[in-house]
Amino acid sequence: MLYISRKEHFNAAHKLYNPQWTREKNIEVFGPCANEHWHGHNFDLIVTVKGFPDPETGFVVDLKRLSLLIRSEVIEKLDHKNLNIDVDFMRDKLASCENLIVEIWKILEVKLPSITAFGKLHGIRLYETPRNYVEYFGEQ
Amino acid sequence: MLYISRKEHFNAAHKLYNPQWTREKNIEVFGPCANEHWHGHNFDLIVTVKGFPDPETGFVVDLKRLSLLIRSEVIEKLDHKNLNIDVDFMRDKLASCENLIVEIWKILEVKLPSITAFGKLHGIRLYETPRNYVEYFGEQ
Amino acid sequence: MLYISRKEHFNAAHKLYNPQWTREKNIEVFGPCANEHWHGHNFDLIVTVKGFPDPETGFVVDLKRLSLLIRSEVIEKLDHKNLNIDVDFMRDKLASCENLIVEIWKILEVKLPSITAFGKLHGIRLYETPRNYVEYFGEQ
Amino acid sequence: MLYISRKEHFNAAHKLYNPQWTREKNIEVFGPCANEHWHGHNFDLIVTVKGFPDPETGFVVDLKRLSLLIRSEVIEKLDHKNLNIDVDFMRDKLASCENLIVEIWKILEVKLPSITAFGKLHGIRLYETPRNYVEYFGEQ
Amino acid sequence: MLYISRKEHFNAAHKLYNPQWTREKNIEVFGPCANEHWHGHNFDLIVTVKGFPDPETGFVVDLKRLSLLIRSEVIEKLDHKNLNIDVDFMRDKLASCENLIVEIWKILEVKLPSITAFGKLHGIRLYETPRNYVEYFGEQ
Amino acid sequence: MLYISRKEHFNAAHKLYNPQWTREKNIEVFGPCANEHWHGHNFDLIVTVKGFPDPETGFVVDLKRLSLLIRSEVIEKLDHKNLNIDVDFMRDKLASCENLIVEIWKILEVKLPSITAFGKLHGIRLYETPRNYVEYFGEQ
Repeated sequence: MLYISRKEHFNAAHKLYNPQWTREKNIEVFGPCANEHWHGHNFDLIVTVKGFPDPETGFVVDLKRLSLLIRSEVIEKLDHKNLNIDVDFMRDKLASCENLIVEIWKILEVKLPSITAFGKLHGIRLYETPRNYVEYFGEQ
Repeated sequence: MLYISRKEHFNAAHKLYNPQWTREKNIEVFGPCANEHWHGHNFDLIVTVKGFPDPETGFVVDLKRLSLLIRSEVIEKLDHKNLNIDVDFMRDKLASCENLIVEIWKILEVKLPSITAFGKLHGIRLYETPRNYVEYFGEQ
Repeated sequence: MLYISRKEHFNAAHKLYNPQWTREKNIEVFGPCANEHWHGHNFDLIVTVKGFPDPETGFVVDLKRLSLLIRSEVIEKLDHKNLNIDVDFMRDKLASCENLIVEIWKILEVKLPSITAFGKLHGIRLYETPRNYVEYFGEQ
Repeated sequence: MLYISRKEHFNAAHKLYNPQWTREKNIEVFGPCANEHWHGHNFDLIVTVKGFPDPETGFVVDLKRLSLLIRSEVIEKLDHKNLNIDVDFMRDKLASCENLIVEIWKILEVKLPSITAFGKLHGIRLYETPRNYVEYFGEQ
Repeated sequence: MLYISRKEHFNAAHKLYNPQWTREKNIEVFGPCANEHWHGHNFDLIVTVKGFPDPETGFVVDLKRLSLLIRSEVIEKLDHKNLNIDVDFMRDKLASCENLIVEIWKILEVKLPSITAFGKLHGIRLYETPRNYVEYFGEQ
Repeated sequence: MLYISRKEHFNAAHKLYNPQWTREKNIEVFGPCANEHWHGHNFDLIVTVKGFPDPETGFVVDLKRLSLLIRSEVIEKLDHKNLNIDVDFMRDKLASCENLIVEIWKILEVKLPSITAFGKLHGIRLYETPRNYVEYFGEQ
């Protein structure tokens, strides 16, 4: 049983803002992250696939195909975008890393079988900055 | 279930030295780490909190508050200090990363509920150098 | 003659957009960087001061004071901000790193003498991503 | 229960090539990684040992001895080598990271008890590039 | 006058080997780098362009176009290649970083004017490992 | 004309303390860096040699020999040491990076000709932390 990981990145704008609250409440809770005119980050995204290697290729998953899948299904929808406005799967959700990583999981869990019969999605790590990151392993 | 991590750092001096041994025995076991006049490191500390997000804020834990807690309860006691002399919770303990990380765990486990009702301390990673690190998950 | 450098960081949103052009022309020239809803980055800023050390303190410049100066005069105006909207010294300028670094230079060149009699501003490096950066040395 | 990790590195050439396939099939499956004249990487290897500290030394494992063990038993056999040709334990195996990490595990699992009575091999992480890595925890 | 830099990378095999010497002399001079079966690296390449910004776009050089130029003219010829065998502009040259960087300079100096009227090639930095790098500024 | 660089590291303790001042004055000027019981860092040291390549070997300087020289002449005297007490060439000097880098320059400038006829010492960069560094180019 091996764990294979691929790192991709995207640059996006967002703000933490709950529309059911006043602007004052948002600033009280989210501080500068609630700045109405947005701020942004260079996000790093690490996707880990778990499984036994295909005896013919030695691959749990072909990392070139995994990279292409992450780029076409996730990065293309997030890179140089505004997470609050431009991203269909973030509509009506707080644009936090916590919500974003769960949506990325849902997308990749569905798409991964198209590129590997041997691996399953194991975990995702999303860096908002080099010092802040969130991980999700599909646990409910 | 999400895992949220925050990285902080501190610069400290220490030596590995067992006072019940002769100086020769210390140098035999600990090598240059036993240098009586100390050496030091830029330590990196990663604290991981695990839990379900607060439905109102989307936070398992507010990373700004987590950062402030780690700084006030841990970093302030270690930064620009001598781990063998200046740190009350390391008194009478070998100033190793193994002992230090367990003491940091004890402090944060007690203090974390003051800033989150949704997250529990999951793990700590302490880098002594970019090539040497120790992790603790509260396991006995 | 020594060169002393300090790295700080800020997170900001921006877009590359020339208001004298049509939206189509902007997208043709700036590509996804022209996304009208913004994108963003974790910027890293390295400031280098050059000079002879103060014989009493050994400092060309006190790095703690340099850090505080950069934070109060530059970072506070940029961090968690929108470079196109929120930053007074970027008003009516294309929000590019090239323009931003020249404005940061102007601010620091004026303020630096308040914290050092021995050092002069030598250079600034501004990372937009880990792979793209710009440098300015005050050359006309 | 603590987890202690040490990072080492080596530089090696390899190609992904299944000798039972035609050259065309190899290029179809492995792409540029099948280049017959090889390519290469700076590999990073992180070895994690798990256990309770020795009450006398505070060590689960002495990191200096762990570093020496990894270097003598693993790095010396891989560094500045061709993984397809020069490495006895990779003979007749596809020179992939997936196969390499399992062989490194087998070597270290046998040798580790010679340097620690308190720690067991917990995991290995092998970086082929800063963006691609594989992990193995001895799971069958 | 601004300096704009872009980092790209490639993975390649090589050996340091002077065909006019015996194998023994090669090993004596180049050590493990002379291993006849090659070794390899993840190379990082930073290209710096110097100039005044285009008043219309604010660009000394469009970094997207610079990245594409470096990839098409340099990276494509080096990535997943053997520097001693596969690279036409390294034929009959010792496959050292010193020789490689001068050849990369020659290529980019000729091609750069096709993408910028405002910038000139200023410098190249080539990392063979995170600890070894060479720089060239076109000085004779 | 090429510039070749090699990075080494060492871990050391120090304090910033002017013995001609009172303890209060030291704390006022140097803040936590004046802690009487020391603190410490993981220092990174980058040494750059400049010159034309030896036509036979392609080397300005053999990086293996440069690494060994830096280790034997500099690192061995600093690693796991106290810069204020254990280092002969820092005696009676403020243990600052500014003073340390000038002393390292003096040592390497004298020793470098023993390993290269083609290169001269060009510059040294000394990182005290990932965010603070000093450079010296031998300028008076």
